[in-house]
Amino acid sequence: MIYFYKLKGIGMIQTPHLSTDGIIKLYDENDSFLGIIFIERLNKPFGIALPGGFVDIGESVESALIREMKEETNLDVEIEELLNIYSDPKRDPRFHTASAVYICKAKGKPKALDDAKDIFIYKLEEIPFEKLVFDHCKIVNDFLEVTKL
Amino acid sequence: MIYFYKLKGIGMIQTPHLSTDGIIKLYDENDSFLGIIFIERLNKPFGIALPGGFVDIGESVESALIREMKEETNLDVEIEELLNIYSDPKRDPRFHTASAVYICKAKGKPKALDDAKDIFIYKLEEIPFEKLVFDHCKIVNDFLEVTKL
Repeated sequence: MIYFYKLKGIGMIQTPHLSTDGIIKLYDENDSFLGIIFIERLNKPFGIALPGGFVDIGESVESALIREMKEETNLDVEIEELLNIYSDPKRDPRFHTASAVYICKAKGKPKALDDAKDIFIYKLEEIPFEKLVFDHCKIVNDFLEVTKL
Repeated sequence: MIYFYKLKGIGMIQTPHLSTDGIIKLYDENDSFLGIIFIERLNKPFGIALPGGFVDIGESVESALIREMKEETNLDVEIEELLNIYSDPKRDPRFHTASAVYICKAKGKPKALDDAKDIFIYKLEEIPFEKLVFDHCKIVNDFLEVTKL
C-alpha cells in the first residue's frame, strides 16, 4: 500500500492518524445502567483508557469503532451518536492522532481482549479521572456534560 | 517525517487520510442569510464541492478547517458545530479519505483562491445537487435536515 500521494496542485499528503474511541454505556438485561467501560492498556502509554483503536484503510469510522469495541471488550455495541473529534496534536504522546469519539450502548459481559490488559465497569461517580491517559479525561467530561444518565 | 510506525502489539499503522470540509453560511452586514458557499474545483475530481482540504500533521481539525476556508474562499469562518465525519471508503475516487464536516458562518466577500477555480453563493433552493462531487450531495442533505435556516 502506497501511503504518499503526489497530486497535481497539492503535492505530498500526510495527515494525522485517524482513530476512534467508544464511550460504552453498559446495560443489564432489564435495561438498568451498569456503568461505562474502561480498559487498562496493555501497551504504552500505560494507564486507564476508553476502548478504541485505529481506523483501517477501507473501513468506515463507524465500522472501525464496532470492530475495535468487539476486539477489546468482546461487546457488540450499538452506536448512538458522535460526541466529537479530538485532534489536538499533543493529545497522543506517540504521534499526532485524531480520534472520532462515539457514544454507544451494549449489553452482555465485557472481557478484556487484544490491547486491553484488564477491563472495568465504572459508575459515573467512580470514574478514576486521575488515571486516564491521552485526553480521555476531557473526553469523558464532555460526555458527562451531554449525557442524560 | 516518518509515516509508518512500528508499535509493540499493533504493527504498522496506516489509516485513511483525514480531511475537513465546511458548510459556510454567508451573512451580510445586517445578519441576513445570503447563501451557502460552494467552489468549482480546480483539480480532479472536477465539479462543484464544499470548500475543504486535508488536515496537516501538527494542526487540529478545527484549525485546518479555518485555514482551508481562508485559503479557498478568503473568508474568516466561525465554527458553529460538527455535522458529522464522513468516511465511506468509496466517497473519494482518489483514495480513502475521511472528512470531518463542520457547519460554520462568515461575513464578507468570498473570493476563489487556491484549489477553487470559481466560487458560488447558493440559496438553499438553488443548490445544484447534480453537480456536486464526492459525497457532498449526502452531506448537504444531512445539513438541510438539521439546519434552522
